[in-house]
Amino acid sequence: MQLGMIGLGRMGGNIVRRLMQRGHQAVVHDRAEAAVAMLAAEGAVGAASLADLVQKLQAPRAVWVMLPAGAATEDTVMQLGDLLSPGDVIIDGGNSFWRDDVRRAGVLREKGVHYVDVGTSGGVWGLERGYCMMIGGDREAVDRLDPIFAALAPGLGDIPRTPGRDGRDPRVEQGYLHAGPNGAGHFVKMIHNGIEYGMMQAYAEGFDILKSADAPVRPDNERFSFDLADIAEVWRRGSVVSSWLLDLTADALASDGKLDGFSGYVDDSGEGRWTIQAAIEQATPAEVLTAALYTRFRSRQEHTFAEKMLSAMRKGFGGHVEAPGKPSASDNAAVARGEGGNA
Amino acid sequence: MQLGMIGLGRMGGNIVRRLMQRGHQAVVHDRAEAAVAMLAAEGAVGAASLADLVQKLQAPRAVWVMLPAGAATEDTVMQLGDLLSPGDVIIDGGNSFWRDDVRRAGVLREKGVHYVDVGTSGGVWGLERGYCMMIGGDREAVDRLDPIFAALAPGLGDIPRTPGRDGRDPRVEQGYLHAGPNGAGHFVKMIHNGIEYGMMQAYAEGFDILKSADAPVRPDNERFSFDLADIAEVWRRGSVVSSWLLDLTADALASDGKLDGFSGYVDDSGEGRWTIQAAIEQATPAEVLTAALYTRFRSRQEHTFAEKMLSAMRKGFGGHVEAPGKPSASDNAAVARGEGGNA
Amino acid sequence: MQLGMIGLGRMGGNIVRRLMQRGHQAVVHDRAEAAVAMLAAEGAVGAASLADLVQKLQAPRAVWVMLPAGAATEDTVMQLGDLLSPGDVIIDGGNSFWRDDVRRAGVLREKGVHYVDVGTSGGVWGLERGYCMMIGGDREAVDRLDPIFAALAPGLGDIPRTPGRDGRDPRVEQGYLHAGPNGAGHFVKMIHNGIEYGMMQAYAEGFDILKSADAPVRPDNERFSFDLADIAEVWRRGSVVSSWLLDLTADALASDGKLDGFSGYVDDSGEGRWTIQAAIEQATPAEVLTAALYTRFRSRQEHTFAEKMLSAMRKGFGGHVEAPGKPSASDNAAVARGEGGNA
Amino acid sequence: MQLGMIGLGRMGGNIVRRLMQRGHQAVVHDRAEAAVAMLAAEGAVGAASLADLVQKLQAPRAVWVMLPAGAATEDTVMQLGDLLSPGDVIIDGGNSFWRDDVRRAGVLREKGVHYVDVGTSGGVWGLERGYCMMIGGDREAVDRLDPIFAALAPGLGDIPRTPGRDGRDPRVEQGYLHAGPNGAGHFVKMIHNGIEYGMMQAYAEGFDILKSADAPVRPDNERFSFDLADIAEVWRRGSVVSSWLLDLTADALASDGKLDGFSGYVDDSGEGRWTIQAAIEQATPAEVLTAALYTRFRSRQEHTFAEKMLSAMRKGFGGHVEAPGKPSASDNAAVARGEGGNA
Repeated sequence: MQLGMIGLGRMGGNIVRRLMQRGHQAVVHDRAEAAVAMLAAEGAVGAASLADLVQKLQAPRAVWVMLPAGAATEDTVMQLGDLLSPGDVIIDGGNSFWRDDVRRAGVLREKGVHYVDVGTSGGVWGLERGYCMMIGGDREAVDRLDPIFAALAPGLGDIPRTPGRDGRDPRVEQGYLHAGPNGAGHFVKMIHNGIEYGMMQAYAEGFDILKSADAPVRPDNERFSFDLADIAEVWRRGSVVSSWLLDLTADALASDGKLDGFSGYVDDSGEGRWTIQAAIEQATPAEVLTAALYTRFRSRQEHTFAEKMLSAMRKGFGGHVEAPGKPSASDNAAVARGEGGNA
Repeated sequence: MQLGMIGLGRMGGNIVRRLMQRGHQAVVHDRAEAAVAMLAAEGAVGAASLADLVQKLQAPRAVWVMLPAGAATEDTVMQLGDLLSPGDVIIDGGNSFWRDDVRRAGVLREKGVHYVDVGTSGGVWGLERGYCMMIGGDREAVDRLDPIFAALAPGLGDIPRTPGRDGRDPRVEQGYLHAGPNGAGHFVKMIHNGIEYGMMQAYAEGFDILKSADAPVRPDNERFSFDLADIAEVWRRGSVVSSWLLDLTADALASDGKLDGFSGYVDDSGEGRWTIQAAIEQATPAEVLTAALYTRFRSRQEHTFAEKMLSAMRKGFGGHVEAPGKPSASDNAAVARGEGGNA
Repeated sequence: MQLGMIGLGRMGGNIVRRLMQRGHQAVVHDRAEAAVAMLAAEGAVGAASLADLVQKLQAPRAVWVMLPAGAATEDTVMQLGDLLSPGDVIIDGGNSFWRDDVRRAGVLREKGVHYVDVGTSGGVWGLERGYCMMIGGDREAVDRLDPIFAALAPGLGDIPRTPGRDGRDPRVEQGYLHAGPNGAGHFVKMIHNGIEYGMMQAYAEGFDILKSADAPVRPDNERFSFDLADIAEVWRRGSVVSSWLLDLTADALASDGKLDGFSGYVDDSGEGRWTIQAAIEQATPAEVLTAALYTRFRSRQEHTFAEKMLSAMRKGFGGHVEAPGKPSASDNAAVARGEGGNA
Repeated sequence: MQLGMIGLGRMGGNIVRRLMQRGHQAVVHDRAEAAVAMLAAEGAVGAASLADLVQKLQAPRAVWVMLPAGAATEDTVMQLGDLLSPGDVIIDGGNSFWRDDVRRAGVLREKGVHYVDVGTSGGVWGLERGYCMMIGGDREAVDRLDPIFAALAPGLGDIPRTPGRDGRDPRVEQGYLHAGPNGAGHFVKMIHNGIEYGMMQAYAEGFDILKSADAPVRPDNERFSFDLADIAEVWRRGSVVSSWLLDLTADALASDGKLDGFSGYVDDSGEGRWTIQAAIEQATPAEVLTAALYTRFRSRQEHTFAEKMLSAMRKGFGGHVEAPGKPSASDNAAVARGEGGNA
């Protein structure tokens, strides 16, 4: 089958490669001409513009947009809406906000153009392992794109089958899911990333406690100097917390056991935030997912204003003047021994 | 090699079975005679008492205690300390508090008896999949027990090897780790369970938001009715959140998609609590692990006193009288539409 | 000065009364004729409709809308926009979302009508104690309304003056603040309520721990049976946690020491949610305010789906079958003694 | 009445002064001779040692220990236990851990010496405002010390009385509470401080969101540049969040509106930690109090190891390389516009 691809970054380029490896044809476009040239050298048809790309595809066309969520995706989708013909389909495979999908699909529907939102997980490993896809859109369009999804998905592989799935939609076991109408694909992907944040933070906190077990807050026979790389590795094997994220963690720790190569400055993408927004709209408690997000916010500041407020209040009622390195009645070792201050 | 086993419950019994399958001999004891008889029928040597068990083992002896943490383990370990001879070793394979290990090891050391603490993960699946073991104790004792650990561990299996581990302790890749001196084994297992709580809660919150996406707080075209079993399944395949816990979740949802068979009353074992205790002693923030623990506490109450306090204050300043089912200016749908109350 | 008031509920009615007590005139309207009649009997001029109210006011008019946030306020403000004349001013004294203020002010500005958003705190006590007001809008309109705000505010009273305020805006010490342009008033009120949630939850958790200090998880000499009413009372006097919310708490506990009269079902209004939304947009960690909100969400469910997920996973890996009242290896007293289960 | 005081720091010295102002006699000791000399010049009787102090008091003696919790208090109490006679009483007015009280009281009881634990709130303001006291101990000793407590407590003052307290213990309204047996005083004080942490954090987060409302994540007409000093001031007057902590906040902001004089490094004393420990032992959720504690832990680190773990995982699955100042697909402004990264 033939697919147009707009956006040849880390994700888009590899998606095209995986499709071509499995016998599909791709017409590709990117603002960076070098990216187009590289894929053309690998067998894709290069396109110099959106209009050129549309012209080089046979109707009914399928155009996958793989750009940063927000303005880049919005503009491209809207321009494509003007260039395409009734019966064509636009796939937004990026990390768009699900409400944008609902809105865009409505606009395009009036032009007879289908819109399919695809949450795509797999990162830099997807070319080799395949992509897990969560899909929203009308059935006609999703079904027509099935060869594309089937080629991109991991397939059954050697992952054990879940009992009790006989008679259920077989695509799910292949690694792609038609989750519902427009917006559903990105909604599920949003929650996927929210969970990802929570899991990452769970590991991160656990390893941090393992690391600080060597701090001099306890007598020598109650302190431990753990090899974190070995702990990550052993947990991969038969433990309840084994996961792909743990595999990656074991990788990282095996090569840099103290993670000195990392700053500790942690970005967040929109999905973590939108997950909390959905939780709040739906009055669903989400303590862990929220705490995971806030850790990232905090990681990007030297000190929050909130912390200065605490210091100011402490000075107000107790005369405490605080600073790192300053001797204090309540340094950690002292507090651990039960020697607190007065308030 | 020969091992004594005390405690033939879900874990202890299967550990004996896995050892015998791999050519080791076991002398077994349990307060329940039927449990002893069953294992004896499978090839173990039954013992009628601790003294009998000790007598039936050849020195230097190795006795594995697999009992509930707390009084049962404490009493048994101390009795064994009196019955055993210098050079013998006691293994506590349960979920003891790591400080109890430090103390017990000190007491036993004076009698010349070794003590090894083993955090054992694997649950009801361990017989087949093998057990992940985190071990604390002196090197001599741990090394002597190596045939036992090697037999219980999962082994390399088909889990991909982590790059960069050449030259490292090969036992770790087999699934068992000598983590450090006494207490280290159960400390690492404690953190393992703390992480487990956090991961479970991350999944639980994510699926809860997926489920409540169908609540009537939004217009129809912004509501989704997701098939949670399919979502769990698709995430097993190529996504960032794949894990063994997700495999189990997919299992559960495939057979009971709304989990109607579960009460929502959630126990916690000691490790989750001790993890937080360690975090606090070590001044290490652990938001996610703590929130996961508190969710379980909350799940076991109909209403907390704290919630009644909130209601009492709201009545105090705003005249609000609250109860489920009562029409309220701030029911969820109204709030979602922006119709809050006044305070 | 003359003020029109639309909405004669708990807040609107008392605002009119306080204004009339201080010599101002009010023209009042409410959908409920009885409410209009009651205020008319107290000296206000009743109006049968919005149009009637507008007609009975002298230009330039000032009309205060005191209705539930959302559709009721939106419709009324927009209708007033059509009825009023250039130079008139609409005050939204309810709990509107600040972005609605920004939008509405823009629409009305084109008609020459001023819009002022006023966050009003004071609840049922405002008639007597005065209202704390946080005001957003253009300077001309806010200044013109000064007699109204001055009459509604508490005034200096016997609250000690803050040192260092000489030369600052004297209105603030009277209890009203021109916080900034449109939206600023409700933004500040939103944060006020967010903080209120956090403070309430801090007290609630503290008292809950005091109450559960009597649970049989510890030996008798480590258990306490506290008189919560006395504790609330003593903290009002010289302690660091004294506050008006604590005064209300002491009131409630003095008359119902176990709060048996409260269900523990706790509503939330929009401000708590919007506070978190702002925190997330601004990448500002807000753990405490968020946790306080989630407690309320949780209080309104018997069991969350998330909790059922936890139970399902626990059954999956450990064979645990959980239910209240069921004997369990990990009931609280057992866990407190260190007798956890195995996983 | 006559009182011995050991420890003449910020708290102990002022307690002696307030007692002398109200006609009581004090015999005072401190390791710092200058502190003794200063109080002696103000009318106290100086003592050169514990033994000297004991000798200068008439039986039955009352000795107040006001030292840092932990070793200093422990040693002094135990030495006094040897020096005092049956019928004498030791008061620990510091911030001891309640379990230490239970233990010490038991040891002293065997010598016939009473032990009274007093949680003392009031900070540097206590001399003038009086101290709020939470008292644990046997009735005989507490009653005998009543003149001391009455002199130190704030008294009724002009704080409005709580309705419904007729017939209740009148001491509570004076500002001191006999909370229960030994340990009860410090348990209540511990929870007091736990709540204090939560309230402080609630304010701190709220003001932080107000401050970050000026960050360029939104269009100009949705940004606000608030005067935080004015906001703190106006909330003192008639709002639901008025409190003594807010008074102190208004003070601090009036003199340093951006709190540039504070580092944001925040200590914690033992009570905040012990509060969480009690919550966990009692299986009582305490999200807000815990989050407040963790904020302080976090404030004392440049970056946590946990944050480096997150970065390492993000690099692992997505190839993200993170650092402050580095252009990123997910900087805050971009994310606010919906331009997230891909995972």
